[in-house]
Amino acid sequence: MLVYLNGEYVDSSRALVSVDDRGFLFGDGVYEVTRALRGRQFEPERHTQRLRRGLDGLDLRWPFADEREPEEIGRRLLEENALVGRDAVIYLQVTRGAAPRTHHFPPESTRPTVYLAARAFSAPEELRARGADAITHPDLRWARCDLKTVNLLPNVLAKQAATAAGAFEAVFTRDGLVTEGANTNVWVVADGVARTHPATHAILGGVTRDVVLELAASAGIPVIEEPVRVDALWSADEVFVTSTTSDVMPVVRIDGRTIGAGAPGPVARTLYDALVARMG
Amino acid sequence: MLVYLNGEYVDSSRALVSVDDRGFLFGDGVYEVTRALRGRQFEPERHTQRLRRGLDGLDLRWPFADEREPEEIGRRLLEENALVGRDAVIYLQVTRGAAPRTHHFPPESTRPTVYLAARAFSAPEELRARGADAITHPDLRWARCDLKTVNLLPNVLAKQAATAAGAFEAVFTRDGLVTEGANTNVWVVADGVARTHPATHAILGGVTRDVVLELAASAGIPVIEEPVRVDALWSADEVFVTSTTSDVMPVVRIDGRTIGAGAPGPVARTLYDALVARMG
Repeated sequence: MLVYLNGEYVDSSRALVSVDDRGFLFGDGVYEVTRALRGRQFEPERHTQRLRRGLDGLDLRWPFADEREPEEIGRRLLEENALVGRDAVIYLQVTRGAAPRTHHFPPESTRPTVYLAARAFSAPEELRARGADAITHPDLRWARCDLKTVNLLPNVLAKQAATAAGAFEAVFTRDGLVTEGANTNVWVVADGVARTHPATHAILGGVTRDVVLELAASAGIPVIEEPVRVDALWSADEVFVTSTTSDVMPVVRIDGRTIGAGAPGPVARTLYDALVARMG
Repeated sequence: MLVYLNGEYVDSSRALVSVDDRGFLFGDGVYEVTRALRGRQFEPERHTQRLRRGLDGLDLRWPFADEREPEEIGRRLLEENALVGRDAVIYLQVTRGAAPRTHHFPPESTRPTVYLAARAFSAPEELRARGADAITHPDLRWARCDLKTVNLLPNVLAKQAATAAGAFEAVFTRDGLVTEGANTNVWVVADGVARTHPATHAILGGVTRDVVLELAASAGIPVIEEPVRVDALWSADEVFVTSTTSDVMPVVRIDGRTIGAGAPGPVARTLYDALVARMG
């Protein structure tokens, strides 16, 4: 597999970074995961915008030649890896580069590390058809969840807890409220209205979340962006999660308790169909 | 410089990890920094114990042959790099290893990445003589600050804010209370009593902090392990910070406001002298 690292296209076995890379030492970097269906990248501008916000949040400069370069590198990776005719994801990561270890920033001259890779992806259609299990998990994360950084340990530990429980996702809870999933946004439907946490510092505002907000508006599904109480999960008609790799995934059980009818519901179905149509 | 990486001693220029290393992708690992004075490692057992607690907290297995191996690798690194006669620090990091990217843990067979390096160190004696500046900074970190992980971005951003302000350290504040520094523990002295945050999940209990607690007891300096209100900084007689690389560092100004007499105080001095004696 050919990947991109710091200006070169190299085999993944040769894609190595120094142990002095601040990604390795501090998690000092940001990332994006972009979907590419049959060679067409989905919402590249939104990913670029979010990447820029993340870099700004970390006081990292834009490390590409221009606004379009990430998409162009992605395109070449899809071509070089024979992924143009398939469903794929493009992973992008930028770190503050390699320098002698100091907590404060390294010298201005330090070159950021830029890594991109494209991989074949298979959407979890069987799971979508029957609906997923989730667990609730305390949201232990820091106060800037809106930055898509590689400081992902609380997400890793929550996702592992879900996996160990045989579940697809961990639903984060903080102060009695649902924030989001370990790597998804969470939506709760009751009485025909969908609710999802507003895009504050407490969540990572997903690109899929943004698109689904638009799709819901077009479909006439009322959405309120407000935090949902954990208790409200148990009386919900539907719960679903959204992300670049789960699209719209119905959740039919949480902590072993059946949600709604215990089967994928009509709101999730409508929004998934609309998303598929939008992705082309 | 010779470093240790996954069982081999290699030149630091060849110390490379895969972009698939979970340290790089998730900050999925822990670290330790141990002081070595003239070839003698300071409190290696405490570092080993804390490393074990950190690994347990991340559900990572002990990656060394036995309890003593980290110290032995450290000793060889001091020898190979001509650091036996000097003041040095040994950096150790363990990550969950390289594997195809998933938030949940990789297969059991994934070998952890183990990295150690020793570097010459020069303690900041000039700064200690006149006393350091600090700034206050919101503590944005996650809920498990007691684990010494490489998810260090909030610490990096706070330390950079301090550095940009010409200060030595950022004093974290949360809910009106002082927690600790970006990479130190904070102590506040008033009316002959020293206070420092208890070793809860809200701070990283430093090895130097533990030793200084013992030294204070021996010196007859009363210490109360309780959180200090931010307000109490302004009326303190002394503030100082402790860590493996700052030892006991008096803080004489915070946010530009003079602390106590604006000069290093007797409690910091007594504890520093006792620490130097203990380090041998």
